[in-house]
Amino acid sequence: MVKVLTDADIRRLAPEAAVEWMREAILAAHTGRLQTPPRVSADLGDGKLVFTTGALTGEWYGYRSYDSFDTDPGSQLVVVHDWHTGAVRDVAIGNELGPRRVGAIGAVAVDALANPDVTTLGLIGTGAQAWTQLWAIATVRQLSEVRVFSRDPVRRNAFSARVSAELGLPASPAESARDAVEGREIVVLATNSPTPVIEADWVAPGAYVTTLGPKQIGRAEFGPGLVARADVAVTDSVAQTSAYDPPFILTGTPQHDRLTSLGAVLAGDAPGRTTPDQTVIFCSVGLAGTEAFLLARLIERG
Amino acid sequence: MVKVLTDADIRRLAPEAAVEWMREAILAAHTGRLQTPPRVSADLGDGKLVFTTGALTGEWYGYRSYDSFDTDPGSQLVVVHDWHTGAVRDVAIGNELGPRRVGAIGAVAVDALANPDVTTLGLIGTGAQAWTQLWAIATVRQLSEVRVFSRDPVRRNAFSARVSAELGLPASPAESARDAVEGREIVVLATNSPTPVIEADWVAPGAYVTTLGPKQIGRAEFGPGLVARADVAVTDSVAQTSAYDPPFILTGTPQHDRLTSLGAVLAGDAPGRTTPDQTVIFCSVGLAGTEAFLLARLIERG
Repeated sequence: MVKVLTDADIRRLAPEAAVEWMREAILAAHTGRLQTPPRVSADLGDGKLVFTTGALTGEWYGYRSYDSFDTDPGSQLVVVHDWHTGAVRDVAIGNELGPRRVGAIGAVAVDALANPDVTTLGLIGTGAQAWTQLWAIATVRQLSEVRVFSRDPVRRNAFSARVSAELGLPASPAESARDAVEGREIVVLATNSPTPVIEADWVAPGAYVTTLGPKQIGRAEFGPGLVARADVAVTDSVAQTSAYDPPFILTGTPQHDRLTSLGAVLAGDAPGRTTPDQTVIFCSVGLAGTEAFLLARLIERG
Repeated sequence: MVKVLTDADIRRLAPEAAVEWMREAILAAHTGRLQTPPRVSADLGDGKLVFTTGALTGEWYGYRSYDSFDTDPGSQLVVVHDWHTGAVRDVAIGNELGPRRVGAIGAVAVDALANPDVTTLGLIGTGAQAWTQLWAIATVRQLSEVRVFSRDPVRRNAFSARVSAELGLPASPAESARDAVEGREIVVLATNSPTPVIEADWVAPGAYVTTLGPKQIGRAEFGPGLVARADVAVTDSVAQTSAYDPPFILTGTPQHDRLTSLGAVLAGDAPGRTTPDQTVIFCSVGLAGTEAFLLARLIERG
């Protein structure tokens, strides 16, 4: 009998384990053992069903399904099949696995690309992606200050209080985006904004910036100014950025020519940060196949 | 909590209900209420994951997933989401739902296109598709003789015995394909053969022929002779036949110009059989979205 995991099960996932498994997944994709083809979608008139797939040679193949039928998305499924028999091994239904895995990928990137001794973090956004970034990053850096901004004071206050209570981090709401970001060593942008939410000159030298939201030309949560000042630009999937329409915001800039895969940095095949004063931008796109990877490992080892 | 149906649950499905629901689905696709976009697939190197999707406006959207990793396919999933909330309503895991729905579509076609008083059936093939055709067709015609051929005498004997015992039909093994087909009023081809398994002149005037197996130019379980003598050609999805590569076997023939959708026949928007002596061929391609339709109705009304 197939065990179906729900969001309640996924919430019990330990962030340390998730980060370890996502590091393993990103390296496996870099070496070609994890297959991560482009996502496919079917147009059903009022919305699309989208499928991201993956296969870990010799172990499993599987996918995640999600939809665009409404601004309020439906439940996602993550499915893992046994490589040898084709039987369905594991299923998760809900909306927790996706953001947890993006959070864990974010922590792998922070660990590889932020300066080792950083302790301060500025966060724009208070949704599920914002939450899981903190949940995971706290396992790779000792955070002494977390400053949170969103436009709605009620939400930023409530989110900060929850981060303090549930994640045990010293979080406080910021009065403005500038107040949250200026001088922070790690900056996390986790919005759905199609227009910039920060100015490039608020970002301190040596800072590390993760962007989780829109990052297309003409539709991005940050502006060309931040792109121009990035000394190092990294993503979890170069292939997935190529599929963006409108194009990926780095397209046509010198940063795009130097765009590096996180897997190559982890494997030592490409440089990441080389000096403490470099500004590094990590463009999180959600490497395909990592949802199934996380579910497979959780069931095997959780 | 989502209930996950297994093959054991699907085997309890009543054929009368399945046939009624597939008739409803085919009509809904004809009127545009059931969306059935082309299937999509992702290439994972050693095989593909394939997704067929569907949406019944105002009720649900969903999909079926299956794979081509091996000649022995893995388990399929069928998933139904609530149209309004996006929540996962129903899931089935296994390999029974697909052939049951093809069987039920086959019975809808027989009911619409075979002569009303027919009682004899010749079947080539002894797999899951062969079984579910008989399971469903027996609800729309009173069968007094079922003759079964496959190349392996052990299999055709065992299959005939099982049909008699479990479906209560007067089935017997045939010594040859010709022996099974010649003079029968309904002919069902349910093989995986890339080359013709019958000759056109074995098929009696007025007969109705369903083809479930390969039907591409240069790769088909019947030859151009049968195409040439078909007075009426019908399929459950004209759009899906257009996606064949190599092309659909009727392409470039006069039969293709007259190819009719089963939904149009059911709705009275196109003629089907108009005289008792016409030879009718039904090209079963497995209308997309019908797996989710069958699962949704089974859970709602089963």
